[in-house]
Amino acid sequence: MIDEAGLGELAARALAGLGMEKADAEDAARILVLGDLFGHHTHGVSRVESYGERIKLGGIDPRARPAVEEAAPALARIDGRNALGPVVGMRALESAIGIARTQGTGIALARNSNHFGAAGAYCWLAAEAGFASVVASNASVTIAPTGGREARLGNSPIAFGVPGDDGNHFVLDMALSVVARAKIRAAAARGATIPDTWATDREGRPTSDPKAALDGFLLPIGGYKGYGLALAVDLLAGMLPGAAYLTHVNSWSEQPRESGNLGHFFLAIDTSVLGSREWLAERMRDFARILHETPAADPAAPVKLPGENELARMQQQRRDGIQVDAAVLRMLQERAAGAP
Amino acid sequence: MIDEAGLGELAARALAGLGMEKADAEDAARILVLGDLFGHHTHGVSRVESYGERIKLGGIDPRARPAVEEAAPALARIDGRNALGPVVGMRALESAIGIARTQGTGIALARNSNHFGAAGAYCWLAAEAGFASVVASNASVTIAPTGGREARLGNSPIAFGVPGDDGNHFVLDMALSVVARAKIRAAAARGATIPDTWATDREGRPTSDPKAALDGFLLPIGGYKGYGLALAVDLLAGMLPGAAYLTHVNSWSEQPRESGNLGHFFLAIDTSVLGSREWLAERMRDFARILHETPAADPAAPVKLPGENELARMQQQRRDGIQVDAAVLRMLQERAAGAP
Repeated sequence: MIDEAGLGELAARALAGLGMEKADAEDAARILVLGDLFGHHTHGVSRVESYGERIKLGGIDPRARPAVEEAAPALARIDGRNALGPVVGMRALESAIGIARTQGTGIALARNSNHFGAAGAYCWLAAEAGFASVVASNASVTIAPTGGREARLGNSPIAFGVPGDDGNHFVLDMALSVVARAKIRAAAARGATIPDTWATDREGRPTSDPKAALDGFLLPIGGYKGYGLALAVDLLAGMLPGAAYLTHVNSWSEQPRESGNLGHFFLAIDTSVLGSREWLAERMRDFARILHETPAADPAAPVKLPGENELARMQQQRRDGIQVDAAVLRMLQERAAGAP
Repeated sequence: MIDEAGLGELAARALAGLGMEKADAEDAARILVLGDLFGHHTHGVSRVESYGERIKLGGIDPRARPAVEEAAPALARIDGRNALGPVVGMRALESAIGIARTQGTGIALARNSNHFGAAGAYCWLAAEAGFASVVASNASVTIAPTGGREARLGNSPIAFGVPGDDGNHFVLDMALSVVARAKIRAAAARGATIPDTWATDREGRPTSDPKAALDGFLLPIGGYKGYGLALAVDLLAGMLPGAAYLTHVNSWSEQPRESGNLGHFFLAIDTSVLGSREWLAERMRDFARILHETPAADPAAPVKLPGENELARMQQQRRDGIQVDAAVLRMLQERAAGAP
């Protein structure tokens, strides 16, 4: 157990130990610690290890300063210059929010970036500041187009945030595959079969064999609908910003020395322009109430909103401390020992 | 067979016959004819019949003028004043594009509206003008929340558009249920079973019996992911604009005399700010090429992009004439006979 401030400080020192400037390391640590607070440890401070490996191989520039260009009054373009993803993400978030403060709406489109942590972490920060947001990134390819038998698009994450009453923000953070690859790996390890809606084999045929699925491709939600949504995200986050898209995105595991040239999409809307804080809070309470009061199919499992489990986990961990793997803490301490 | 101009004129005269002003009737006809051109006749001029019924019952005001308010330099709020949906939609589209022309990005949020036709029709018009777009609407409730056994959210449509080379625009237009209710009705009529991923019975349990499904609720794509996306759309298109949301949206069939107070979300991005026309055209050609060249699971069924079938249908119908039901043409002619 470690508290939020302590984990943030340790992660920032670890990132500084990898050559990052203090302010950038603190920004990146903030995004990663939010991943842990939500209970998504795969997108938390454990990432410092793989970020560090890629920095050492020259695939990420720890000291790069992203350049923000005002392309139009309500539209910023950001050249990430191959900085760490969460650093580019924080510049993009600040830029979209800064624009929305004066224009009502702000968009920031980032290129030359890398894995930026949990998309929902940015929506959370936007909601805390009173902004509705849509945040998306593209990703290296893992999904075959509908009807295809070769991976040509990424399992791109997209997140939506709307400020709620008293910190009860709506945050939906999801990727567009039916399940994550890790879930198929777990089934393979157990020797279990999987539903044939999760993935195809390498020939593009639906399979219930997890080993064949790991050789094949993830299936998007809703078949051609999820395929279409993943393309739409790649267009917003990769195509429009001038980043790589589809098979042009370099794979972290296969080309660790290369810049990934990932792209991100950040949209912020100033909700104070739409109505008073209390107006929105009251409507958001009502929105949640309507859903919570739905009669449940299983009375023991009441209906929830997206992000509610994460919010509960955050509140509990802020009270009791954050659960981080001992091995991850040791890794951070080792990296931090190299800090200036 | 009837050509595009002829069908547009006939539909506009039919709408004028229902009491609409000429310019509004022409705007609405433009959106409906695009639905037919894409081959989506359920969202085409056939809608004039149900629009007309609702106008006669006082549920829609055919002469209302939507009011556009500049809430901030890049954010417009539109009070639809219960006008016909496509009229509100066209005002919102013009507003978002008009803002994006000077600000780079423009958002228009509409309330007090009604069914606005095919979301993709607006994205198509935006793409023709060089703008990327996201267009969404909320809808009356047909979907139960994940784990619930009562419909509390709508099968809200969302569409994405990006200008392509030489009119080959990317347009993805989809709702968030696995299938439309019509597909379940068709199975019931044939006496066939349905996959148990399409819908639940009235107790919220997945069912393969189409009759039980028609008594129950549509299932969203990807389970809780599609549920979350449908909520996100309702927040962007209903909550933020100050429109109704969730169960507050009045049902067309159950309360035809009441205003629906639907809401819409329109986002436009001026792509000319991001790079030259040729820069985007070249990237969009490459994007399509990467997908088309994916080895196909079935060599007889090559990989397609979303919207390609619709685009082909549009090109074919522009060449050969639009296929409209004789009964629909008669209905339009009857309505048009009442025009001033």
